[in-house]
Amino acid sequence: MRNPGSIAVIGVTGYTGFELATLLLRHPSISKPTFYVREPNGNRCLSQLFPQLRGWGEAALRTLSLDAITASNAGTAFLATPHEVSAELAPKLLDAGLRVIDLSGAFRFASAETFSSWYKLPAPHAARLGEAVYGLPELLATRLASAKLIANPGCYATSVILALRPLADAGVLAPSQSVVCDCKSGASGAGKDPRRDLHFVEVHENFRAYNLFSHRHTPEILEHAGVPEAQLTFSTHLLPVARGILSTIYVSLRDAHQPEEIARIYRTFFAGRPMVRVWPSGSLPELQHVVKTNFCDIGFVLQAAGKRLIVVSCLDNLGKGAAGQAVQNLNLTLGIAEQTGLL
Amino acid sequence: MRNPGSIAVIGVTGYTGFELATLLLRHPSISKPTFYVREPNGNRCLSQLFPQLRGWGEAALRTLSLDAITASNAGTAFLATPHEVSAELAPKLLDAGLRVIDLSGAFRFASAETFSSWYKLPAPHAARLGEAVYGLPELLATRLASAKLIANPGCYATSVILALRPLADAGVLAPSQSVVCDCKSGASGAGKDPRRDLHFVEVHENFRAYNLFSHRHTPEILEHAGVPEAQLTFSTHLLPVARGILSTIYVSLRDAHQPEEIARIYRTFFAGRPMVRVWPSGSLPELQHVVKTNFCDIGFVLQAAGKRLIVVSCLDNLGKGAAGQAVQNLNLTLGIAEQTGLL
Amino acid sequence: MRNPGSIAVIGVTGYTGFELATLLLRHPSISKPTFYVREPNGNRCLSQLFPQLRGWGEAALRTLSLDAITASNAGTAFLATPHEVSAELAPKLLDAGLRVIDLSGAFRFASAETFSSWYKLPAPHAARLGEAVYGLPELLATRLASAKLIANPGCYATSVILALRPLADAGVLAPSQSVVCDCKSGASGAGKDPRRDLHFVEVHENFRAYNLFSHRHTPEILEHAGVPEAQLTFSTHLLPVARGILSTIYVSLRDAHQPEEIARIYRTFFAGRPMVRVWPSGSLPELQHVVKTNFCDIGFVLQAAGKRLIVVSCLDNLGKGAAGQAVQNLNLTLGIAEQTGLL
Amino acid sequence: MRNPGSIAVIGVTGYTGFELATLLLRHPSISKPTFYVREPNGNRCLSQLFPQLRGWGEAALRTLSLDAITASNAGTAFLATPHEVSAELAPKLLDAGLRVIDLSGAFRFASAETFSSWYKLPAPHAARLGEAVYGLPELLATRLASAKLIANPGCYATSVILALRPLADAGVLAPSQSVVCDCKSGASGAGKDPRRDLHFVEVHENFRAYNLFSHRHTPEILEHAGVPEAQLTFSTHLLPVARGILSTIYVSLRDAHQPEEIARIYRTFFAGRPMVRVWPSGSLPELQHVVKTNFCDIGFVLQAAGKRLIVVSCLDNLGKGAAGQAVQNLNLTLGIAEQTGLL
Repeated sequence: MRNPGSIAVIGVTGYTGFELATLLLRHPSISKPTFYVREPNGNRCLSQLFPQLRGWGEAALRTLSLDAITASNAGTAFLATPHEVSAELAPKLLDAGLRVIDLSGAFRFASAETFSSWYKLPAPHAARLGEAVYGLPELLATRLASAKLIANPGCYATSVILALRPLADAGVLAPSQSVVCDCKSGASGAGKDPRRDLHFVEVHENFRAYNLFSHRHTPEILEHAGVPEAQLTFSTHLLPVARGILSTIYVSLRDAHQPEEIARIYRTFFAGRPMVRVWPSGSLPELQHVVKTNFCDIGFVLQAAGKRLIVVSCLDNLGKGAAGQAVQNLNLTLGIAEQTGLL
Repeated sequence: MRNPGSIAVIGVTGYTGFELATLLLRHPSISKPTFYVREPNGNRCLSQLFPQLRGWGEAALRTLSLDAITASNAGTAFLATPHEVSAELAPKLLDAGLRVIDLSGAFRFASAETFSSWYKLPAPHAARLGEAVYGLPELLATRLASAKLIANPGCYATSVILALRPLADAGVLAPSQSVVCDCKSGASGAGKDPRRDLHFVEVHENFRAYNLFSHRHTPEILEHAGVPEAQLTFSTHLLPVARGILSTIYVSLRDAHQPEEIARIYRTFFAGRPMVRVWPSGSLPELQHVVKTNFCDIGFVLQAAGKRLIVVSCLDNLGKGAAGQAVQNLNLTLGIAEQTGLL
Repeated sequence: MRNPGSIAVIGVTGYTGFELATLLLRHPSISKPTFYVREPNGNRCLSQLFPQLRGWGEAALRTLSLDAITASNAGTAFLATPHEVSAELAPKLLDAGLRVIDLSGAFRFASAETFSSWYKLPAPHAARLGEAVYGLPELLATRLASAKLIANPGCYATSVILALRPLADAGVLAPSQSVVCDCKSGASGAGKDPRRDLHFVEVHENFRAYNLFSHRHTPEILEHAGVPEAQLTFSTHLLPVARGILSTIYVSLRDAHQPEEIARIYRTFFAGRPMVRVWPSGSLPELQHVVKTNFCDIGFVLQAAGKRLIVVSCLDNLGKGAAGQAVQNLNLTLGIAEQTGLL
Repeated sequence: MRNPGSIAVIGVTGYTGFELATLLLRHPSISKPTFYVREPNGNRCLSQLFPQLRGWGEAALRTLSLDAITASNAGTAFLATPHEVSAELAPKLLDAGLRVIDLSGAFRFASAETFSSWYKLPAPHAARLGEAVYGLPELLATRLASAKLIANPGCYATSVILALRPLADAGVLAPSQSVVCDCKSGASGAGKDPRRDLHFVEVHENFRAYNLFSHRHTPEILEHAGVPEAQLTFSTHLLPVARGILSTIYVSLRDAHQPEEIARIYRTFFAGRPMVRVWPSGSLPELQHVVKTNFCDIGFVLQAAGKRLIVVSCLDNLGKGAAGQAVQNLNLTLGIAEQTGLL
């Protein structure tokens, strides 16, 4: 018998996996998760990988085995694995009756073509894409509550969609004017594998743009932000910080507005959504306000004439941008308050 | 008898002043400058303020005295002083026959109204504004060579104007489409005075936008970038690095272009200008490539369809963005190669 | 009627105060604290000072008034105030029947002479020094449980004492050989007030020693570490990180030992003490393992010959080095598990 | 005919190699060096590896070939190669009549046993060890001027030896008391190869000790610092900065001294040595004073009783700790002022 609160976590060696482990180990409404990893880490202990956990977050690591997972009573599996691995594992876990919350990009798109074109890979999981619900609770909470397969959003995409969608839905965006999303992320977003360009000396006291016009989070934004492709420009930069994303978003408004009208659009859209904090007009969130939290903070400044608007959207790429949001999605599926274990 | 290569430096206690001192002390074509500071630093030694200079850059500091300066044979005065001080000192030094290179914002604008409106101050120096030449050698080298009063540009403005002006002059910008300049600077650009928001803990592992729609470099950009005010949006952010500015600039093109056409526009514009390095199409400069140099590096990526362009412009805010550019201007007035002492 | 679990927090505007507020607001065994601050912050809201708290840690700030505190049912007061202020307030609060946990240095020493000589101040609170218990739970848990006045230790002192005292008590230190404590701290330990030497640019990409032979934590170490003054050298350095202390401690042993013997000394000393983690011989804790925790992590390497020992002791200066330890002390006085609210 | 000022640089892809290239390209007394690298970088251009050099430091890279080098007129070869490679190449270059300045550890020790024991390698170059002169100009300038094989010192070793040797030679150290050298280095000292523990996220906002009792610079210190092995403890830590070493060194003095006596010992020892700056008693150098320079800065604080002394020694690990010192050694062999090209 599957128990939704019995959790299998697959892949825990990266930054996202560690964050997820930390959140789940502290979560008040679930039992201790079981952690599965690939060799050679099997049969080691979680705190050997992450000494931060010594003394309070001890847990055995098991060698990844689908048989073991399906034989257990686990009702929910988190996949903190590369997208190729997720594409392969998720269908099998679904077939075995587990709910799957996938943190990779494998299931984020409606069509296999989108996946193949942006990830430069075949899409063996094409048949299952239609089952996935995009895991952005502020947009899709009701569907997520009963979803069997949740595609946890990309970190950049979360920060951009949450800033743009309220404006798009309110119909205030000027048609055919460009919407520029200039996004900056800390280095943990690039993963934990050693890379020359992620060497401390190459990131520290440095700053750079990367993947212009080609970042894989683009199609997620196009599917959910409510802005036509012809208007959207999305760019990414590497900040010399460990964690956090700050997106500066430039929009033109159809008509002149007062700041309070913009504030009301955001407050209305996010009413009852505890993990987005809308800042008072003219005040802006900073990275340090959201690092190590599951909040997405949104602030804005409206130019005096009322038609040019800059929105600043901040979150922690490992929190609301990844592991925190995954737990928020778990909470929805468990029918408990979505911020449980996240404050 | 005034000697153009005899230099008086006024104000040397800040980060820009220190950078200027360092460059001038190493400059091969001038004699050792005389440094003037306000009490209480007079009669101290430069290396007491900046122990980095011990053993090679020793120099006495003199208490600031207009009489002493005018009585000397100094032909050129650098003002690394606040704009109020520059506004007061520059006219007197000009009247005494010195050439003035002012690093503040006091003389950067054509009109006193612009100064007053953006700096929230009266403009007692209004009568002299017309004499000033904006100190951007890549735009105005000929006029700078004979200028008596040089208004050294703002750091952000330099990075933005050098990226936009070639495109504007080439006529490739789409009319009435927004031009977004998303700029990020290290903390030395905010000056050396202690401020709560510049405390290490408030900048490190943090990132924030500031002065949106109100930064004082805006009018410089509007006067020199070739982009109409109605199209321009300019924003500024504080990076957790000591030095450097990276500006990401988003433009729409009137017609579709090939990358090589854009590269040619830049290369043509900057032909013979040694301090701007145009990167090959598709490759982008990073902050670390320009920190502690006087280069402005410009790279770009053109979207496949050829009409959306992202330009990345990098410089060191204390180098090409301030002290280095001031020395470059000095070189022009001395009739020597503009990169002298700057490589 | 005073209620020990009803908490007054005095002084909350600094880094330690914020950390304390965060811990107390999340603490599962107490009601929401009341926060008192000096003008001009009274009547503001905690989340105005610390936007990180918006949405979950809202609390009113009250203007500091002894009358208000004594009229309330508060049973415990935390003083996150400068030592002069603590010296003045603590006696009054004690007289009003509150338990006081003071985070300053005012009450850490047995004698007024020690205080006056190291803090260069008169000791108006001399009469009350004898009442204070030094708030290091791993040494003095029993006395702390019933203490009315707790002098919360200094951050450096905590890291050094916890590393040395077990060795001293075990009698393994070589007599008359020097014990060197080379300690490094992040910048939050220097407080939040703007200072030129704490400007981001002066700390970032820099490292320096300071207060050699004169740091105020020295007498705490001498009173509690078990090492004679003639043997001890204690030094402090400023790391370019926000949080954390790592102390590298060099001792000579009286006799040759095996690593396991040293490990046993530590494990025995800290048996049942959940907030100190002793690392296996030869493995060493790093700053990142303890930042944002209340742990003190201790590891060591013994030279092959078995007589020279290097101990590495890490903690978060705002956690186990200040606010976390204060809460640990509160827990002792409340008779609950000392790690409550600290994992 | 070999020309001593005709330079071959072998190995230029690492941080030290880049620093060396930069210094040599700017050096006023030599012609442009020839750079040799291993495949696959041969036939590329130096500025492709290091875009910082574009526009002023262009140079072809040649595929490493001993034949090509010996066929050229090169009189001096720098080896910025791993010690295995240096051990193999240096004898051949010497045999071909070139002077060799080796930046690796291959030739730093008097005996092959020392090399083998600390580097865990056979010493195929054992026969040539006796020819090498340890490249510390402040100790061995005369011998270095005519040396054919110069073993450029380790970065940590340089900072420690320069601080200790003057005290040892002056005979002021207390016999049989420990001398503790607690050293901290920036991450460029660990090399450029990608490593998990050098990932930005693992170094930033972190600090750790490493290689305690086993660092390879230990035997260099023992051979040159003048302190018996039984007294010396040397430790190393990784700072979250790109460049720079600060060593805090703890010594006990045989007799009580006045600070001025200690200052005189240092000033006398380093008289006429331009690259060591002795600070006035009680003032201490910081990392930022020496980064991007070839200086070693030494300051100290003497305890009031006059017998315990803390010395702080700073340098840039890529400058005086590696490439700068190599150029200083070149200058000695060329018979020009040792600071040429280094200020």
